[in-house]
Amino acid sequence: MNSVRSGLDPLSSDGKVYIFDTTLRDGEQTPGVALTPDEKVEIARQLDKLGVDVIEAGFPASSEGEFEGVRRVSSLGLRSRVAALARSVRGDVDRALAAGVDRIHVFIATSDVHLQYKLKMSREDALASAVDAVSYAKSHGVEVEFSAEDATRTDPEFLRTVFSEVAAAGADVLDIPDTVGVATPERIADLVRLTREAAPGKIISVHCHDDFGLAVANSVSGILAGAQQFHATINGIGERAGNASLEEAALVLKFLYGKNVGIKPELIYETSRLVARLTGIYPPPNKALVGDNAFGHESGIHVHGVLEMPSTYEPISPEVVGRKRFFVAGKHAGSHGIEAMLREYGIDVNEEQLRQIVREVKRLGDMGKTVTDADLLAIARSVLGRLPAGEAAVSLTGLVVVTGMGVSPTASVRIRLRDRDVDTSSVGVGPVDAALRAIQSVVREIADVRLVEYRLEAITGGSDALGEVVVKVEDDLGNMASARSVGTDIVMASVDAMVDGINKILQKRSTGATGNVRVQDSGNRG
Amino acid sequence: MNSVRSGLDPLSSDGKVYIFDTTLRDGEQTPGVALTPDEKVEIARQLDKLGVDVIEAGFPASSEGEFEGVRRVSSLGLRSRVAALARSVRGDVDRALAAGVDRIHVFIATSDVHLQYKLKMSREDALASAVDAVSYAKSHGVEVEFSAEDATRTDPEFLRTVFSEVAAAGADVLDIPDTVGVATPERIADLVRLTREAAPGKIISVHCHDDFGLAVANSVSGILAGAQQFHATINGIGERAGNASLEEAALVLKFLYGKNVGIKPELIYETSRLVARLTGIYPPPNKALVGDNAFGHESGIHVHGVLEMPSTYEPISPEVVGRKRFFVAGKHAGSHGIEAMLREYGIDVNEEQLRQIVREVKRLGDMGKTVTDADLLAIARSVLGRLPAGEAAVSLTGLVVVTGMGVSPTASVRIRLRDRDVDTSSVGVGPVDAALRAIQSVVREIADVRLVEYRLEAITGGSDALGEVVVKVEDDLGNMASARSVGTDIVMASVDAMVDGINKILQKRSTGATGNVRVQDSGNRG
Repeated sequence: MNSVRSGLDPLSSDGKVYIFDTTLRDGEQTPGVALTPDEKVEIARQLDKLGVDVIEAGFPASSEGEFEGVRRVSSLGLRSRVAALARSVRGDVDRALAAGVDRIHVFIATSDVHLQYKLKMSREDALASAVDAVSYAKSHGVEVEFSAEDATRTDPEFLRTVFSEVAAAGADVLDIPDTVGVATPERIADLVRLTREAAPGKIISVHCHDDFGLAVANSVSGILAGAQQFHATINGIGERAGNASLEEAALVLKFLYGKNVGIKPELIYETSRLVARLTGIYPPPNKALVGDNAFGHESGIHVHGVLEMPSTYEPISPEVVGRKRFFVAGKHAGSHGIEAMLREYGIDVNEEQLRQIVREVKRLGDMGKTVTDADLLAIARSVLGRLPAGEAAVSLTGLVVVTGMGVSPTASVRIRLRDRDVDTSSVGVGPVDAALRAIQSVVREIADVRLVEYRLEAITGGSDALGEVVVKVEDDLGNMASARSVGTDIVMASVDAMVDGINKILQKRSTGATGNVRVQDSGNRG
Repeated sequence: MNSVRSGLDPLSSDGKVYIFDTTLRDGEQTPGVALTPDEKVEIARQLDKLGVDVIEAGFPASSEGEFEGVRRVSSLGLRSRVAALARSVRGDVDRALAAGVDRIHVFIATSDVHLQYKLKMSREDALASAVDAVSYAKSHGVEVEFSAEDATRTDPEFLRTVFSEVAAAGADVLDIPDTVGVATPERIADLVRLTREAAPGKIISVHCHDDFGLAVANSVSGILAGAQQFHATINGIGERAGNASLEEAALVLKFLYGKNVGIKPELIYETSRLVARLTGIYPPPNKALVGDNAFGHESGIHVHGVLEMPSTYEPISPEVVGRKRFFVAGKHAGSHGIEAMLREYGIDVNEEQLRQIVREVKRLGDMGKTVTDADLLAIARSVLGRLPAGEAAVSLTGLVVVTGMGVSPTASVRIRLRDRDVDTSSVGVGPVDAALRAIQSVVREIADVRLVEYRLEAITGGSDALGEVVVKVEDDLGNMASARSVGTDIVMASVDAMVDGINKILQKRSTGATGNVRVQDSGNRG
């Protein structure tokens, strides 16, 4: 009947911190997120590679697709345990068993507000349901984890009784959910101690939400107080403000407290990107460890420090989490950073030229303008009078793009290549795609420059708001460049960025620049 | 010479927690962010309304624009104190004095790694510079705050000496920066106690960065250990992973620890939106308190609970921070939530119809589709056979959009209004703008529906990646609706969303729906 793998390591309290990943369950409950079974499988494989201990694959009783997703993740033969959520009713437990999971995560709410308004049950009935569901699940030989939903708003004496009785009924793991994210670190620590008294010898877990921004600190506090497992999601996604960020909680425990955490930090960034891409929920640039800017530096004081010794302004080396550092020109940039960025393009400047370039960068910044690499090169060009001779730059001399209903998006471009104009056209899946395809096809005559990433920043405002496009391009020699453009016409902004990116690549090909510092522009925060 | 206001309340240790907002300084150092003096003034006025105690307006010595921004903020006559950053050199202090600030925030790095590699100074020289700059600033009658940059990686005994001597030199406030975000709450508490011993009677402050996701917890820990001030930024923006989020730290202290914090929580959301708009750094949907989803509910269990009693799944009422709750249809949605959403559109269903609709919503969700209000209405329409008779829906029967180089973005549309086709054209600042203007102008014949918000979600991938558009429209009767569309052609997706939004408004006009629950769709998370 059940398909529990016999090869699972037994749960123990030997100092290892278990990570229970709920990206596919609580994370997937993020409003607007829905993952197909295929996507669940893709994320589960990555979580297994990352090294999480438990993957909660879903809530099989909630829909057919959920059941199918959990069943498929269970059948992958992963190193991680696979868990599924079940309400404290036998039907839910049966669905989880049928999906073939290693662990069933049974829950029921225990706070009075949930009992009275949501479940409309007495404490006694809730306790009886929990005990029945746990012992029923346990009788099928699976691991059983029990969560007392809304534990942090539950009467502590009732919580003690619940944990004690479900432990006696066979639960292997007792989880303390801070369901609405109102706990403090001190409160979580108290509840971990209460649970340890109520159910000695069991594995204790905490499940924290980020409604006040304390989910990571609360998870850490739980572990420090004696819990051996925490629940978390990649990028901290989840209902409302989300759950504890797995990457943050795991690395705080590993690097700041020296705990034994089983994940491979160098896979954190690729895991974050995968989850962002499949859920559509991108971390903000200032997200710890995984945000675009987490290892980017703009201010002159910071850039200067990092050039001398990265640890001056870096908490850890970006490579530790699979990243690279980058510098950004801008109003706060100092001469050391600007000089390093110019050197990356093979441009040497003397002291007076550098002073003029820095002054111009600050002037642009004071006007509220983000200074991109393209701007920096244009400034350098004007200060130096010329740049080292490169291949003739590409320029756009004509463009018409059409789309509509019953019209294949089509672009017609005229591009000046060295000394002649070349015309071509292309269709695409949208007007931007058509235009960029046409440009690439013309440029192929002199260099094979391909678009490797296209990013359009979110636009908010009216339909006349500014859009910001960042492109990353690469050539056959491995040169890479990013370029950014801003405008009210998304098609034109995309075309401008693409042409800039191509010109940067051509510039690199001609100067053969290979800086020691891997300097990327602000559009290239990979 | 200096323009310190005489009306400032004296600093005291009476239990009030001071909030030092550094959105305009550390926040503005976010890579890629640059604020003009006008924008600084707009944000400063809002911070003053919000009730922060100190506004750090910038770093006057860094550029002319910075100086001008600080000078203008200083001259606004705000209730908040205005501060400016200065390195420990008299020239920087002079620039800050010339800008007319109330408080000068003098800093120097004190950690060995910063002294050796960045400043190339001995401890003795750094200490002498700090003491000189603090006493020089103090001699001009301003308040002086001193930060020992990288305090959390500084030899504690040297830190004790530095704080003791700058306190003797006249510093009013001693700030402990966790410059690279590597401190734990315990470490911050220790340093606050060390500083209190080193400089009894002075105001102690903490400045925390979020590189490991602990900035808020560390700020709170500092206050609990006896600091009276913390530094923070709106939305947690700043270098790398950013600073402590002002809104989170302030509300944790106010609501979870009952501290006396002076800000008006109900202005938090509008402040967050203003800063996001002017910096271009939008909080992710799962950001505590200010993220789009912070008060959104999708899962059936959660929606059911919230409909019965909001506190079941809400940490605080959304109105407390100037927000509203909303529900989202999706694969986790339950029948209670779907019923409430349909009622909002004036649609009553019986039990069997509701069961069919919920099943279809889950089926779409299992396919990985986000279920919008438009989808929900389409499902309801198919299940009910028809919807209550509305005004004739609008449909697009023809569209051509052209843009390019030297071409004014132009759209030509044909729209079926009731029983006839109407043609019109419009130019715009981009192809989307042209198309939406043309549609609005045709529809005006039957209803004055205006676009009030346009949002294009970030697109990442190739130029053929899917784009997601959300529009919010409003009519002259105050009806509002949102609609969402996804496609590879941004222009067509925008047009589809607009037409959907208009049809929702027309549906509302005809049914006169006014639900008690303010249900919004997933595109409308204001």
